[in-house]
This record gives sequence, C-alpha cells and structure tokens, in this order.
Amino acid sequence: MDSSDRSRSAAAAKRPQASRIATLTAAQGLREMERGTLTSVAWVEACLERIDARNPDVKAWVHVAAEAALEQARQTDRQGRRRLFDGVPLGLKDTIDTAEMPTELGDPEIFPDRQPTVDAPVVTMARGLGFTVLGKNAVSRHAIMLPGPARNPHDLARTPAASSAGSAAAVADFMTPISVGTQTAGSILRPSAFCGAVGFKPTLDAIPYVGIRTYSRPLDVVGPICRSVEDATLFMRGFTQDPRFDTAKPLTRDVRVGVWRTKDWDNADPAAMAVFEQNLKKLSTAGARISTLSMPPLFEKMGDAQDVIMAYDLAREYAAIKRDHAEKCDPELLAYLELGETYSDADYSQALDEADACRRAFYDLARDLDVIAMPSTLGEAPLASSTGSSAFIRIWSLLHNPSITLPTSRSAAGLPLGFQIVGFVKEDARLLYFARCVEDILGNTAQDR
Amino acid sequence: MDSSDRSRSAAAAKRPQASRIATLTAAQGLREMERGTLTSVAWVEACLERIDARNPDVKAWVHVAAEAALEQARQTDRQGRRRLFDGVPLGLKDTIDTAEMPTELGDPEIFPDRQPTVDAPVVTMARGLGFTVLGKNAVSRHAIMLPGPARNPHDLARTPAASSAGSAAAVADFMTPISVGTQTAGSILRPSAFCGAVGFKPTLDAIPYVGIRTYSRPLDVVGPICRSVEDATLFMRGFTQDPRFDTAKPLTRDVRVGVWRTKDWDNADPAAMAVFEQNLKKLSTAGARISTLSMPPLFEKMGDAQDVIMAYDLAREYAAIKRDHAEKCDPELLAYLELGETYSDADYSQALDEADACRRAFYDLARDLDVIAMPSTLGEAPLASSTGSSAFIRIWSLLHNPSITLPTSRSAAGLPLGFQIVGFVKEDARLLYFARCVEDILGNTAQDR
Repeated sequence: MDSSDRSRSAAAAKRPQASRIATLTAAQGLREMERGTLTSVAWVEACLERIDARNPDVKAWVHVAAEAALEQARQTDRQGRRRLFDGVPLGLKDTIDTAEMPTELGDPEIFPDRQPTVDAPVVTMARGLGFTVLGKNAVSRHAIMLPGPARNPHDLARTPAASSAGSAAAVADFMTPISVGTQTAGSILRPSAFCGAVGFKPTLDAIPYVGIRTYSRPLDVVGPICRSVEDATLFMRGFTQDPRFDTAKPLTRDVRVGVWRTKDWDNADPAAMAVFEQNLKKLSTAGARISTLSMPPLFEKMGDAQDVIMAYDLAREYAAIKRDHAEKCDPELLAYLELGETYSDADYSQALDEADACRRAFYDLARDLDVIAMPSTLGEAPLASSTGSSAFIRIWSLLHNPSITLPTSRSAAGLPLGFQIVGFVKEDARLLYFARCVEDILGNTAQDR
Repeated sequence: MDSSDRSRSAAAAKRPQASRIATLTAAQGLREMERGTLTSVAWVEACLERIDARNPDVKAWVHVAAEAALEQARQTDRQGRRRLFDGVPLGLKDTIDTAEMPTELGDPEIFPDRQPTVDAPVVTMARGLGFTVLGKNAVSRHAIMLPGPARNPHDLARTPAASSAGSAAAVADFMTPISVGTQTAGSILRPSAFCGAVGFKPTLDAIPYVGIRTYSRPLDVVGPICRSVEDATLFMRGFTQDPRFDTAKPLTRDVRVGVWRTKDWDNADPAAMAVFEQNLKKLSTAGARISTLSMPPLFEKMGDAQDVIMAYDLAREYAAIKRDHAEKCDPELLAYLELGETYSDADYSQALDEADACRRAFYDLARDLDVIAMPSTLGEAPLASSTGSSAFIRIWSLLHNPSITLPTSRSAAGLPLGFQIVGFVKEDARLLYFARCVEDILGNTAQDR
C-alpha cells in the first residue's frame, strides 16, 4: 500500500453518514410527502445540512441558493403539491444558464461572476415542474476532461471524473436526490459510475440543449444524475410529458442482453471486467438471455470518430477563448483546441457519415435484443490528477443511443463500479424499463449509506 | 365553370408582378451583396413594398416591424457583412415567441396583444446569424387545421393550407425569401405545396422547439419555408453549424428513388397523381433509378397513429383554453379536443410503439435507396373554406424522417403542385443534397413571377 492508497482508505473510512431524509430518492420523498410524513422544508433542510457538512471536502457545489430554496419549500408546504416535482430538491450543472444564480461554465477565471439574464429552457421547465433548485454543481476545469474542484465522495483522493463531476458527487453523497448534467463524450455516465450514482444519457435532443455551454451540436445531451432508475424515469416523464416513461409497469427477468466487448477491453482493469462478467452470470441465472455481439469493424472506429467531431467543434466554440484568454488556459486545453483545428470539413463529414452508417446497421445487429450491455468504465475511479477514460461510453454519444450506468458493484477498494446498458434511438422509455429490470436483479449500491 | 372558379381565375389573373429584388432567394441576394450590387436596405425595402402591395389581399403578415428592420438593414450596410445571414430578410410564424413583437399564437381573441418577454431560442439564433426579422406571419385559426386569415397568393379564393399558412403565402408571393415555420402533422409541407414554395421539415429536434406554441412533443418540428433547396440547405447550415449542409457539392442524376403509393392514393385527384407519375418519368429519363416500395401494413396505420398522438397531446396542451375560453373556441376545435380526451395512456403508448417499430423497419426497407418519393398533397389547393389534407405528409412527422416538398408543377388551373421526397432520420443534409439533384431535373416553379 503506497501513501496515496493510505490517504484514500483513511478518507473512505471517515465518510460521515447522511441523515435518513437526505438519502431519500425523489420517488421515495414524493411518496412520503403524499402520505404527509415529509414536508418540503424538511427535505430541503436535510440536503442543505448535508451540503454544509460535506461540501468543504467534496466541493460538489459552486453556488448554493439556500434561502431561495427554503422560501420555495415553505411556499410548497403552504400551498400544497400540484405539480409532478413540487418539493423535490434539484442541482444544476454550472454550465446551465440560470437567471437567479451566476453561471461560471467551469471557467471561473475566464467568466468570473458571469450572470445570465435568462434561464436555460431546461431550468424554466424544471421550475415549471415544481423542482426546488438548491444551487449549481461544480464542473471540471474548462468544462472538459481536465480535473476540477470536486472530489469523489467515496475517497477524497480520487476523481469524480468529468465534466458533470459536482453533479454526480453531490447526488452520490446525498446532498441532492437529482442533478441535471450534460454529456458530450462521457460526462454524465462516467462521473455517475465513478461516484456510484445512476446516470442516464437520453437520445440526442430528447431534452432541449439550449442556454447551456456548447461543445458539439451533434453530441451534446442533457440528462439526469440520480440514485435510482425510477427517478431517471420520473425525470424523463416530467421533461418529455411522454406517458411511456412509466414507473409502474411490472418487471420481467426475461431480458435479452447483447454483450459487446470492444477493443478497449484490452486496456481495462481485469478485476473490473471480472465483476462485469459476474453481473452477466447473475442476470443469466435470474432468467435473462445473454448473447455475445459481433460488431462490424466500423463500430470500433466510433470512439475516434466521436473525438474528431468533438475536437473539431470545440476548437470552433472555444476559438475566442483561445484568442483572448490563452494565458488563463491549461496547456492541455490549448493542445486539444489545436488538434481540433487540424481536422478539415471533410474529416468531420466523414466521421458523421460513418456514424450514420453504424446507426443504420445497428438496427439489424440488435433487432433481437432488448439492451446492449457493456462496463461503464475501464475500472474504478483513478486518483484525482486525472479523470479517467470514457472509452466504453463515448461511442453512444456519437450514435445517439440512450445509455445508462447502474451502480451495481464495488471494487476491492470499496469504490463504485458501473454496469452500462444501452437502448435504441428514441426508445428511451424502453431502455429505462429494462434498466429497472436489471437494477432489480443486480441491486443498486447508490442507497448504501 | 361555376362562380367560385370564375372568381379564382380573376384573382389569379391580376396577381401583380413582384420587383426583381423581391424575388431573390437568400443565396442569390447574398451573392449580390458579396458583389456589391445589392444593399441590405434595398432588399428590405423591396420586401416591405411587396408586403404593402399584397398583404391587404394575401393577409400573410399579422405584424410588420418595418422601422426596426430598416434600421437593422442600415446598420448592416454601415458595418459590412460578418455573419452567414447578415442582410437577409426573414419572417417568423406567429406561434414563435418574440420579445420585440407581439405573439398571438394564431388565437388573437384568446391572446390579444400577447407580448412575450424573451425570444424563443430559434429567434435568438436567427438574430445571431444576422437575419433581419421583417415581422410575424399569420397562423391558421387556433393554430390548427382550421382556416385562418391568410389566402393563397395564386388565387385568393383558395386556401394557403394550415398552420404555417402566412409563412408559405409570404414566401411564395415574394414578400420575404424565407420564413420560419413549424410542423406537427403537415404544417410546413402542406402550405408550401399549396402556395408553391419549398418547405423542409428536418428530423425531430434538429432545431430546438422551445418558446413556441406546443402541440405535441414527439411531433413538433421547426423548419424553413423558402424558394430553393439551396436556401433550405443554407438555413440548416446556419442553425446546426453542421458542415455537411453543403450547397457546393456537384449534383448527380443517379438518384435511387423508392416510390410509396399509400392507401391515400385512392382519395387523391387523378390528375395530380398523373403529374406525379410524369415527374417520375422525367427523373427516370434523366438517369434516376425508380423502384416501387412495398411497405408492411403497419406503415399504413401511421397516419392514424399520428392523429392519436397529436389529439391526445393537444387535448392536454389546450385544456386550460377549453376550460376558460370555450366561448371563443370554434366547435371544430372543441370536438377535436374532446376526441383527444377519449384516448388513453395505453392508446398513446401503442401509437408511439408502433411508430418505433416502423422506424426500425424503415432502415431495412429503404437501405438501397437515396430517397422516398410521394406526392405532397392529394391535389391542388381547395377553396378557402377548408385547408386540405396532409395524408401524404403526416406519416413523416410521426416517423421523424426529414421531408421536403418541391414546387415542381402546376395543375390545369395553374395552381402549384408539390413533389415530396423523404430521407433517413438524422441524415437531413443527405436528403437536401438529393433534393437539389431532383430540383435540378424537375425544375422549380417558386421563382416564376
């Protein structure tokens, strides 16, 4: 055991227990409010207490609107619940514009105290659904894959990943039941997997990506980070008004699972891959039908294709920052922007065209399956000097398929490991249904205090 | 010839000719500005003159911001062009929120002088791209399929269809080169076909549908109405920043066209269907490969499924209007809302699930094709007491495929007939490329003065 291992174990050991109310999922809290055993004020206070206790270490919030949240909670308790999410606390990634709080976009040096004048549509929608916004969650540096202020709540020496790092850390550490994140490569699923939360990336454009820091229009997606598939389903029901997002449908164990072991398997931690295989065995024993997918070679190029598109678009989105604020930019960011500048329109079009070809082929390859299963990450969260890899995740950002990570397991060191399942484009409700079935079989560690 | 026929011919005969500048497409005007032979002020003035001359008859605009548009044009001429659409006039359907103009949503009695405080994101984007917003285009009554104030510019006794009626009438009558419309069933393609414009419906969510009167989240789409495929391509390039929307790619005549003659063929005007078949012959002679598609029976249910979803969602969206303003509602609207109330969550889910099944099957059925071809409408524009049928169009609103109508032909009475082609989901740029190829072969009547 080297010294960083020792500090990690020490940190893990002293993670203080959260109060019972702070650990409620949104659905659990809503049921308690329905029964009259929980008030909105008590729920908000429990979250604020947890933030007070833990945020100095975990650094998951860059802004907390305690008084406004309490005032809204008091109003909800006075007026009674009328809307789906009345009384439910919510965090927002700090790349999402808010008119009543600053939005520093993960770049506080370049945009200090930046104050939008209007809410992003997703914020307007969240408020319209009744959510009580607690505040803004920390983002990784420059809002890309570089380490930011937040830490992994299971071990403060470890990374919470990037870029929705504070959102996942806050949810996994019981500071809020849900936070709104975004993903362009792996920014919802990777932090959720490392921190031990449920992270769901919907099909592209299921929720409007407007008024949010833009990386790449063909990739950027808004989605929930929470602690149960039920909550992810409720969230999607609220934001899409699509009744197929139904949390009452009886579960099945007869799930047809196709396993895709990509070339990145060779770079993964064998212990984590063994945990994944054990999960497949558990599913099979429970009644699921597991098969191995053999994907055409073009699919193995999708990770690189995703990077061409993201780098090309980011170089254009961040061009003014590079021009005007180069001295405030990390060398890694500048190098990445320069990489993006080397890609031509033809490179970009080719990557998108290859993705379209894979998207069309996918329907044939997966027609007899309910979900695709893959590990969420190459292994447990690394030390906080890096943010890990999104190799298993980013493919689905490019192909637009909905994907979800479930916190099913722990590594030998006690750190969360995620199990990823993937569905068909625009069949988000179907994926979440099967995710509830898989969660039921494999369990969910997000609620372990 | 009965009396309404006589009045139609009389109206058609005296359609006054537009000035040369007013007839420029966006791309043509941009090229002239580049060469220094056109100013932004001259372009805006030409559009405003045409509006002055024709709007009392055509009623395509409910609000014209003449002074603001001229001021912006003067500024563009002073500062020089920097952005893609600097200097290009634009209309906006009056269901799209604008902070500087009223937005009465097609319901001036229920929402008189309604003034949004913020622009819809698509308006913010349009202004950011440099467009000069001329004003707001008339919408059909209650913003649904009921006749509204606008008239067909080719014959004032005829309908311009619904609901983006004023947008299509304004563009076809040379009052603006482009107007932003929206479609839920056939509201972009049907008015464009009846009025003789190019109407493009992108894949669902290609452009954010936010801050716009909502009908049905799984169906509502924003798209351009204009007078050339080149302009539709430029518009999409601007709003998506996707370089695949490329107006320079050399055209081909080797287009693989699959023809789907749906059951609605039996209800169509035989003369209009004969014109469609002649167009197929022209394509074939030019080098295109025409084949007949045999679609599974489930596809024939998609028109009805689209209506289940639209009626279910509209009943919920308009519930407060029905409750508070029933006396201001047409009986047809109330009956439609009551129909929507009869559909259950299960009906709704089944319709969406059937659509998903068709969406997946589509890739197999169309894998060897470039585009699907269908007529745009059952025939020419009927008299203004109805708005016609969207039977050939609404299917693609439900299945999310991009679709476009091209004004290729005229009926015996001299009224426009549209030729519809349809592409693959998320391959909007590819559809627009082949639409340019088809336009090149079949011609485009939108520029006929």
